[in-house]
Amino acid sequence: MADQFEKGVARRIIAAIKEQIHSGIYQPGARLPSTRAFAAEWGVSRTTVTAAYSQLIAERYLETRRGARAVVAQGLATETAPMPATAAAPRHLSAFAKRLLALPSPAQAQTARMADFRYGDLSGADFPMLAWRRALNKASLRRTMQLRYGDPQGTLTLRTALQGYLWRARGIRCTPDQIVIVNGSQQGLDLCARLLLDPGDPFVIENPGYLLARHAFAAAGGVAVPVPVDEDGLRAESLPFARLAYVTPSHQFPLGSVLSAARRRALLTWAAHTGACIIEDDYDGEYRHGVAPIPPLQTLDAELVIYVGTLSKTLSPTLRLGYLVVPSSLCQAFREAKCLTDRHTPLLEQDALAELLTSGAYERHVRSIRRKNTERRAVLLQALADALGSSVTLAGVDTGLHVVIWIDDVAADREPAIIEAARAAGIGLYPVSPLYDPTEPRPAKAGFILGYAGLDAGALRRGVAVMAAVLDEFR
Amino acid sequence: MADQFEKGVARRIIAAIKEQIHSGIYQPGARLPSTRAFAAEWGVSRTTVTAAYSQLIAERYLETRRGARAVVAQGLATETAPMPATAAAPRHLSAFAKRLLALPSPAQAQTARMADFRYGDLSGADFPMLAWRRALNKASLRRTMQLRYGDPQGTLTLRTALQGYLWRARGIRCTPDQIVIVNGSQQGLDLCARLLLDPGDPFVIENPGYLLARHAFAAAGGVAVPVPVDEDGLRAESLPFARLAYVTPSHQFPLGSVLSAARRRALLTWAAHTGACIIEDDYDGEYRHGVAPIPPLQTLDAELVIYVGTLSKTLSPTLRLGYLVVPSSLCQAFREAKCLTDRHTPLLEQDALAELLTSGAYERHVRSIRRKNTERRAVLLQALADALGSSVTLAGVDTGLHVVIWIDDVAADREPAIIEAARAAGIGLYPVSPLYDPTEPRPAKAGFILGYAGLDAGALRRGVAVMAAVLDEFR
Repeated sequence: MADQFEKGVARRIIAAIKEQIHSGIYQPGARLPSTRAFAAEWGVSRTTVTAAYSQLIAERYLETRRGARAVVAQGLATETAPMPATAAAPRHLSAFAKRLLALPSPAQAQTARMADFRYGDLSGADFPMLAWRRALNKASLRRTMQLRYGDPQGTLTLRTALQGYLWRARGIRCTPDQIVIVNGSQQGLDLCARLLLDPGDPFVIENPGYLLARHAFAAAGGVAVPVPVDEDGLRAESLPFARLAYVTPSHQFPLGSVLSAARRRALLTWAAHTGACIIEDDYDGEYRHGVAPIPPLQTLDAELVIYVGTLSKTLSPTLRLGYLVVPSSLCQAFREAKCLTDRHTPLLEQDALAELLTSGAYERHVRSIRRKNTERRAVLLQALADALGSSVTLAGVDTGLHVVIWIDDVAADREPAIIEAARAAGIGLYPVSPLYDPTEPRPAKAGFILGYAGLDAGALRRGVAVMAAVLDEFR
Repeated sequence: MADQFEKGVARRIIAAIKEQIHSGIYQPGARLPSTRAFAAEWGVSRTTVTAAYSQLIAERYLETRRGARAVVAQGLATETAPMPATAAAPRHLSAFAKRLLALPSPAQAQTARMADFRYGDLSGADFPMLAWRRALNKASLRRTMQLRYGDPQGTLTLRTALQGYLWRARGIRCTPDQIVIVNGSQQGLDLCARLLLDPGDPFVIENPGYLLARHAFAAAGGVAVPVPVDEDGLRAESLPFARLAYVTPSHQFPLGSVLSAARRRALLTWAAHTGACIIEDDYDGEYRHGVAPIPPLQTLDAELVIYVGTLSKTLSPTLRLGYLVVPSSLCQAFREAKCLTDRHTPLLEQDALAELLTSGAYERHVRSIRRKNTERRAVLLQALADALGSSVTLAGVDTGLHVVIWIDDVAADREPAIIEAARAAGIGLYPVSPLYDPTEPRPAKAGFILGYAGLDAGALRRGVAVMAAVLDEFR
């Protein structure tokens, strides 16, 4: 009886897999589930699944090589439409969706063979693996009676630990109630966009500036008011009416200037009078190279400024951990928006980060990675001086994890060709020009953002040498 | 010299902490950072910080007990306004923010002493700690050269593993391209709201139904069209025009009915003709008690249905892991919205889940937790029969992790008093009535949702006995 039952199951498995292959769900070369996983879900013995797989191998639906897992045989004809689909009208999309789809897509990441100067990458070797695993283990061992949804703003333990850190590291005074833990600063920007902007509302943004911030505000229906930056940061002297201003005052992205004291005052006065919020993105405030720390705008007026912090530049962009410090009048709105958006940030990461902060391991790590990036920067600047000398102009070298390099005698319209030639030589280069507002004049010279935090000294030197050789062909 | 420097630093630390206390940043009783953490960030020796703390203890700003960390002394006068604040006009909020703040706040979770029947809780003892830690360790040991942002839709490894799982477990046929990994199903619902609804657009929602779904659509500006449910699920025969319909066809939340075959067809036909999307929330599809598995709506028409899945009911709500299976025509919109919203779901959880799925550990765990919850359900039903007999009516007992209990001779307006009396007796009870649309008639009888997945047999029996005693006083 049992045997008959198992045979019946094997026949059903065979028929089901054939159907999946014919309908294109499993493409030629696709791996099938392991017999163990398959047996587990169907509630049958592995022997039954193995028998079914063997039959399919015999019928040439599947093939195996050197004991590896079965894959769908090459050359099997599949239908072109893999899904059952209606001929119904296309689904209606919201205005948000239409604005979103009209935005230029960010360039797809492709790993460069030799050296990738992509901004935002960190070196895997810099990650504090031991401390993080210890913190994770400690957090995951903390068994609780009940597993239930957490506080939308983040755990009180983490917010209290962050409060202390922000005061010590950045001079920020706030209560844990003002802190909202978010899934990376991008979620913080998106929450700001949703809570502060209606379609048609103007927003001030640095030109050039951070693309994904502009996109978040534009997708919410905001109308960009690009304001130029110079060596003193955003030209804040005569700003027009807007609902919010997005700024990077400690280290303008990408050009690297610091917002001057006079402009800080002008910006705050403007916000106080217009009712606008200032969104201060302190994306790399931990990295200073021999210059005094710059107190955030938030320390000057906590009711006008939403401070955006991230762990993506000190721990890893893959953790998706960031935080906001919001004015007390906006706490409830941010709290409820975070709850509606995704309930809360995963507790495991929150607990691990709180552990790192309270044990002092995080601050030790920041000092260590700051030192490593100071070394990388010195290597990069020396290599650029050696290979390119006075034929390029550098910007934004005092802080952060990137420099901007302007190629003095090459026109901006050669950027795509240079990038392609660099890519062919194994180098990843990223242009400055897409960070300029599309409606404003762009710089005449070709320029690139060189992120260095993901590369070791050898890769930096080789990368610069190859880049110099590539640039030579464009002069 | 060095000594003078350290003394200067100690003085600055003392002044800074005093200021923090006076301005109310540190409230009486608040713990100060450890001397180690403090010293680390200020870049001074621990001796210096200890000296500063000692001085503050001597001046009675701080106090310590039994070698514990220093806390702010009780009875210190603090100013009432802890923050420097402008007298500026309140910040402008978007229409989204105003709608959000006008929604009724979900009841705050308070842990009940004896038994909390809160729906959505899982037992900490059921979490597959060993398998999860093994998977986490494996994932966190996988060192990569570069740490960089991942795929907005989720890692291909996880999406491929889920594709196989969804086919085996739920009969869903899809490609990895159609899967979007989200931070729990709530983020999936919020993405649907943003991409499919404009302010003023009608949406169909079950009445009674899931509150946080209704809130997500209402906050996006959608206008709820509540449609009653009966023992065959949503009354889908004559639906009005709407942009989307949110349904729980496998196990209606909260009443527990299964959407009938005829109504499934009616719903799909309506969607095909109106251009609406169907959002199928399969929130507890893994839990069936002696009934045949119910194939999702998605298997009937993959271009009309957005399937929402979650790991919150099998692993933990604190992980924030869920997924969508979206029609191929909507893949790009969901992908770009996820990227703009928070770049991607944390890689660590994604890697660990992929590991569980491909090793078969997840399916083993599902069978184990399904068995445990079948046992809990039997205990609960027996306890209810013993203590309350025919004085209550049960609904939705065939599947899922909760039952609804209607108190036959008690009016709905007694719910708050019953909840309060139960709370005083150590029992957490949650009413059905807030899940009804506020503009529609509500049931006459008092009713409660009893979630049982977070409680052991003893707590279930004790909880029911106390609940019965409480209810007795209301008859």
